[in-house]
Amino acid sequence: MRDQLMKMLEERKDEIIQIRRYLHKNPELSFQEEKTSQFIMDFYNGKEVEIEKNVGNGYGIVVTIRGGKSGKTIGLRADFDALPILEETDVPFKSINKGVMHACGHDAHTAYLLILADCLIQLKSKIKGTIKIIHQHAEEMPPGGAKSIIESDILDDLDIIIGAHVMPTHPSGYIGLRKGYMLAGRTYFNLKIQGVGGHGSAPHLSNDAIIAGSHFVVAAQTIVSRRLNPFDMGVITIGSFDGKGTFNVIKDAVELEGDVRYMTAETQKLIEMEIRRIVKGIEEEFGVTCELTYTADYPPLYNDPNVTADVISYLEGANDTEITKIFEYPMLSGSEDFAYYLEKIPGTFFFIGCKPKGIENPHFTHSPKFDLDEDALLVAAKSVGHIVCSFLK
Amino acid sequence: MRDQLMKMLEERKDEIIQIRRYLHKNPELSFQEEKTSQFIMDFYNGKEVEIEKNVGNGYGIVVTIRGGKSGKTIGLRADFDALPILEETDVPFKSINKGVMHACGHDAHTAYLLILADCLIQLKSKIKGTIKIIHQHAEEMPPGGAKSIIESDILDDLDIIIGAHVMPTHPSGYIGLRKGYMLAGRTYFNLKIQGVGGHGSAPHLSNDAIIAGSHFVVAAQTIVSRRLNPFDMGVITIGSFDGKGTFNVIKDAVELEGDVRYMTAETQKLIEMEIRRIVKGIEEEFGVTCELTYTADYPPLYNDPNVTADVISYLEGANDTEITKIFEYPMLSGSEDFAYYLEKIPGTFFFIGCKPKGIENPHFTHSPKFDLDEDALLVAAKSVGHIVCSFLK
Amino acid sequence: MRDQLMKMLEERKDEIIQIRRYLHKNPELSFQEEKTSQFIMDFYNGKEVEIEKNVGNGYGIVVTIRGGKSGKTIGLRADFDALPILEETDVPFKSINKGVMHACGHDAHTAYLLILADCLIQLKSKIKGTIKIIHQHAEEMPPGGAKSIIESDILDDLDIIIGAHVMPTHPSGYIGLRKGYMLAGRTYFNLKIQGVGGHGSAPHLSNDAIIAGSHFVVAAQTIVSRRLNPFDMGVITIGSFDGKGTFNVIKDAVELEGDVRYMTAETQKLIEMEIRRIVKGIEEEFGVTCELTYTADYPPLYNDPNVTADVISYLEGANDTEITKIFEYPMLSGSEDFAYYLEKIPGTFFFIGCKPKGIENPHFTHSPKFDLDEDALLVAAKSVGHIVCSFLK
Amino acid sequence: MRDQLMKMLEERKDEIIQIRRYLHKNPELSFQEEKTSQFIMDFYNGKEVEIEKNVGNGYGIVVTIRGGKSGKTIGLRADFDALPILEETDVPFKSINKGVMHACGHDAHTAYLLILADCLIQLKSKIKGTIKIIHQHAEEMPPGGAKSIIESDILDDLDIIIGAHVMPTHPSGYIGLRKGYMLAGRTYFNLKIQGVGGHGSAPHLSNDAIIAGSHFVVAAQTIVSRRLNPFDMGVITIGSFDGKGTFNVIKDAVELEGDVRYMTAETQKLIEMEIRRIVKGIEEEFGVTCELTYTADYPPLYNDPNVTADVISYLEGANDTEITKIFEYPMLSGSEDFAYYLEKIPGTFFFIGCKPKGIENPHFTHSPKFDLDEDALLVAAKSVGHIVCSFLK
Repeated sequence: MRDQLMKMLEERKDEIIQIRRYLHKNPELSFQEEKTSQFIMDFYNGKEVEIEKNVGNGYGIVVTIRGGKSGKTIGLRADFDALPILEETDVPFKSINKGVMHACGHDAHTAYLLILADCLIQLKSKIKGTIKIIHQHAEEMPPGGAKSIIESDILDDLDIIIGAHVMPTHPSGYIGLRKGYMLAGRTYFNLKIQGVGGHGSAPHLSNDAIIAGSHFVVAAQTIVSRRLNPFDMGVITIGSFDGKGTFNVIKDAVELEGDVRYMTAETQKLIEMEIRRIVKGIEEEFGVTCELTYTADYPPLYNDPNVTADVISYLEGANDTEITKIFEYPMLSGSEDFAYYLEKIPGTFFFIGCKPKGIENPHFTHSPKFDLDEDALLVAAKSVGHIVCSFLK
Repeated sequence: MRDQLMKMLEERKDEIIQIRRYLHKNPELSFQEEKTSQFIMDFYNGKEVEIEKNVGNGYGIVVTIRGGKSGKTIGLRADFDALPILEETDVPFKSINKGVMHACGHDAHTAYLLILADCLIQLKSKIKGTIKIIHQHAEEMPPGGAKSIIESDILDDLDIIIGAHVMPTHPSGYIGLRKGYMLAGRTYFNLKIQGVGGHGSAPHLSNDAIIAGSHFVVAAQTIVSRRLNPFDMGVITIGSFDGKGTFNVIKDAVELEGDVRYMTAETQKLIEMEIRRIVKGIEEEFGVTCELTYTADYPPLYNDPNVTADVISYLEGANDTEITKIFEYPMLSGSEDFAYYLEKIPGTFFFIGCKPKGIENPHFTHSPKFDLDEDALLVAAKSVGHIVCSFLK
Repeated sequence: MRDQLMKMLEERKDEIIQIRRYLHKNPELSFQEEKTSQFIMDFYNGKEVEIEKNVGNGYGIVVTIRGGKSGKTIGLRADFDALPILEETDVPFKSINKGVMHACGHDAHTAYLLILADCLIQLKSKIKGTIKIIHQHAEEMPPGGAKSIIESDILDDLDIIIGAHVMPTHPSGYIGLRKGYMLAGRTYFNLKIQGVGGHGSAPHLSNDAIIAGSHFVVAAQTIVSRRLNPFDMGVITIGSFDGKGTFNVIKDAVELEGDVRYMTAETQKLIEMEIRRIVKGIEEEFGVTCELTYTADYPPLYNDPNVTADVISYLEGANDTEITKIFEYPMLSGSEDFAYYLEKIPGTFFFIGCKPKGIENPHFTHSPKFDLDEDALLVAAKSVGHIVCSFLK
Repeated sequence: MRDQLMKMLEERKDEIIQIRRYLHKNPELSFQEEKTSQFIMDFYNGKEVEIEKNVGNGYGIVVTIRGGKSGKTIGLRADFDALPILEETDVPFKSINKGVMHACGHDAHTAYLLILADCLIQLKSKIKGTIKIIHQHAEEMPPGGAKSIIESDILDDLDIIIGAHVMPTHPSGYIGLRKGYMLAGRTYFNLKIQGVGGHGSAPHLSNDAIIAGSHFVVAAQTIVSRRLNPFDMGVITIGSFDGKGTFNVIKDAVELEGDVRYMTAETQKLIEMEIRRIVKGIEEEFGVTCELTYTADYPPLYNDPNVTADVISYLEGANDTEITKIFEYPMLSGSEDFAYYLEKIPGTFFFIGCKPKGIENPHFTHSPKFDLDEDALLVAAKSVGHIVCSFLK
């Protein structure tokens, strides 16, 4: 079956590219992917599969392909939302929705998975087990689509889950994987510090919120410098210190906003505890009142070591000329809501090299000039295809 | 002559009040006192005095009353601009210029001085010396009117200069004086800190201006706490910390604005030197670029001890039933551009109690509800009159 | 009586000087003034007075001189302890107790008061009222002698209390007085911060006490810079930061010691509250355990304004050629346990100029080279004598 | 030859253990290893090798075994100094030099290498290439022995260098290796901050070094929190803040000592640059004078990826039942002067599991209770033997 699948995918390479270009031209923002999801629904129209739409908190679609023989269940996920970015490329299929762009390759993800799904549907009778195709909405905007999908019961029967993401750091044919933590978790926080305003010449009658805010910024540095294991990754950025006022009036209140990154759930908990501790300390020290909103966003993405090891051996054993290199991808400080699936289901998320040919320094994802080598689409389809074949053998 | 003058003033008490009410109803902002200055010019119309208008950088007016006999020269100053405040009192002569209000008693100052001047003009032949009446514009808004007037040569012949200000902390009849420093000097500063922006997860590729700004705020506290003589007054308020940004983007630049207060020229210099030192240190420590604008505004107001002692003895010796108490006024953290005159000419600035009768906690100057006891107007006229009589005797 | 007293004092000027020299040569440390007190006891031996020795927590002596006629009661205090200083002067009556020196003029205080007391005893029959001579031990070392003496009931009948101190900033004949707060109050504090030690390469397994201590020092600066009325005097000096350790071992604990100064009881309370607040905040912020010992030492010295005004008028009215100038002494940051008497009894403490003749920059009290103009001793005796005569007239 | 070598080693297992016990009983401190080096010299006495003693800055010994056939040159290093630790174990061969202990396994290193060397000498004729046995002194005390040995020319002909260290985290039979950076580099720094002392009540006449020191500690936290790549390891510990003084005297000077750790030479340079920058900033900000001694100690230990990969394949291919597991060892924050060899010669440093049997939580190296499973000694000898055989084949 594997050979048959690979041959089918190779024959439909152009079709994958066409779908990708169509989606690229018609991007939609997170939670607003009405037409994209309709396009996907239309694609499956008339095919012998179970389709569930509006899964989770948006336009999510889950397609179930039940094989002819019983076996395990594997989930394959591709996301389909775009970003609020004004495209600056010169591709002929440039976005026609001004200010919206598939700058993170979700068009490519959806395109390869649609054709892979179609091929698997055709090979259904030979399949030993079940495949769930997860077309996910709203990856780019917290709370994202993944959390709500995994919290519904629709994926409860999965044995493993697989996600792939194009990555312009490496050329087509390269597959980057990593066991364990791979992408950072992220938290947004907002700290309102309320003091007492007053005349600039009478500090004793006021309670200067800028002083308290500055001391918070300074003290918060000790979390990364002294609380974290020096081998662990952690970042606390206070990106906003809103204390604009009048030079001779003591500021009554300031509002700080911050971004926290970490590679493990333990670091997440540690930093949260420490920030809360410092906030309490600042209240005590300066007699101000603090209001902290601390919202953990996407968790760190943790690839199951066993599943990842299996996937590496599947790919290494595939002997596919399209797959030229399997390598260990370093940790990244970016975040992905695929992490939510991996909290519940063993699985792995990996990168598909897509660096445009002949380009030394490609534009990264989220750049208005992001572009990809479309050869990567077939690599993605085949890689995931190999994994399905190996896992359900 | 003194008795005659006092009697004339008593008889014109109502007239003083009427002028004050007219001015109160028709306030004009600093540097925009076109009608007010015209009103003053009209008042002197036809009187035997030398008048110079548009003195300094605005509508300032200097009226010279040359006495019949030769003698010393005394300057009397009253300011006439109003504040950008929406009046909230219920007086029948409430401001008709919405958002503009005589909330600092300059209406009272001008009213008493006009009538006092008129009386002195009438008594001119008996006067031994010269009186210069200084109707000053724009006291409320730096750079103020005083600096430009004193920098012109029009007051070069003054032997002493006298200023009086109504003060609602004490009742009518109270005169508060102080030798030496009495009102604070003031400096405005603006500090732009330029770092390098970047993604919240990559602090090493950026240079966080919020960090540098917070450390500046924290370090600046040591100036007052460790650099100043503990018996000296000094305040550094950072009233504005403009670092509003996006939570997950490292802020490239912040802008701080501050207000510095001090009672002596030495403290002024010390604080400036120390702030410049800390700014340089922050540049070095954090690798940011700083741009500091440091603008000394009104200097500390210094009453000549000898002139003040003389004035105290004049007033104590006046045996005027209107003047019920002479007392030492404590230092205040407010500022006054009368300080500029006192840098060049020995003189004194003092307070005329004007607390409304029956009021326990009067509204302070600059309050939209500021009101005064109009009995204070005659007290002001008589006090200054006594000083003139005693000084030019 | 006044003239008689003054004449007697003038005649015994040399005797005052001899006593002072004897005491200077034989100084004793606070709470160890056994021989000094015996010398005083011997002086009064056989005189018609009531003597109480070992008053308070040491060698204090109170001598009561009851006048022939009834009247008010006045206390006169002189201290008699010396300092642990190795004398560096060349006077012939240099200290023979190595490392102990009358470097604060208590020898002069005791000398003038002994002779004044003797004269008053001789004039007893003419005196209208009672005089209590307070020879106080241990002024230099907290808790001092004054607190224990005032807490005994021996001075409960005083109407006023008077203290005088030699002061080398002004020449003999100058008397410096001040109404209200004159000398600073003082507090000692000790802050132990307990963290968790550990290896320098593993901060996450430790809790670095040096970090917490440094943040305490930094945050404590805001008390003086932002909590105090800028017109109020306040100093917080952290004079000791004991965090010596090994470079590659995270310090488990540090000990800080500090000195607080203030001119009013309100400032004392405010600073204590704020330091306690910051200590709590540091505990919260850094998860350390703090142990704060906060010991208010001598309170600010407050001269009763009425008594001081009376004393000024007594001295101004004395027409004594020895007393050449009465002036307002500025506030000082030094401390005196005479402040304890003034918390209970209206009174005043003032300075007797004693600058050695022909010296531009005299050595200050507590200097190993401190010296005084012995003419000041008669001035002290006469000044206090005038006050007694005027008060008990 | 390999089989022969392994058999010889197996037969001499007890001898290795005896040597190790002898050395354990007779430990000597770094740079004082006179008897230990004599013991080694005696061991080689009469053997057909070239021996150079007193290599480098101490008792270092280099033994050259020239094989019968020409080939490559490999260096094998074992250190032989002990630690200033009072042994707390109950072994029968406990240290007889009180306060000195082989608590880091150097006894084991030397023991296995002596016997391995002896076996190789016997097999010399069959060896294709040269083996240099490096018996290194003074690993435990900077500047260490390695730096001076590598700076002599004695190792210039090495193609690769190999070091092995016992490690109680894993049982005997486990071999932990790592490509690239494995152990931290280390820097000692000393910062003297000179201010101006003075009386606690007069901060304006002094320049408080405790303030400057505390601000340095606080500011230095931003290096790790904001300057380092969050994926890079870096630690700055200020282990000593020597600011002990008197509570009411402003401290004139403080001395700080710190320990810096990093895994790459780039991080080392970055942290040094940033600390120097902050020191300059503190000088500017607080007007103090700083004297910084910044001494990079052992560099980060970098295992050549190719040599390490080769060694892994040698060991994996050895099919030796004694070697039960080859695994990737995580980075450690400890330091080793073997890093100096690796700066010049490609090579690898790896860990030999030595956890005592039946012990869950073994005592770590440098513990006074450190103990090891002596089976590990043969594992070490055989592992290094395999590497020699494979490399020189």
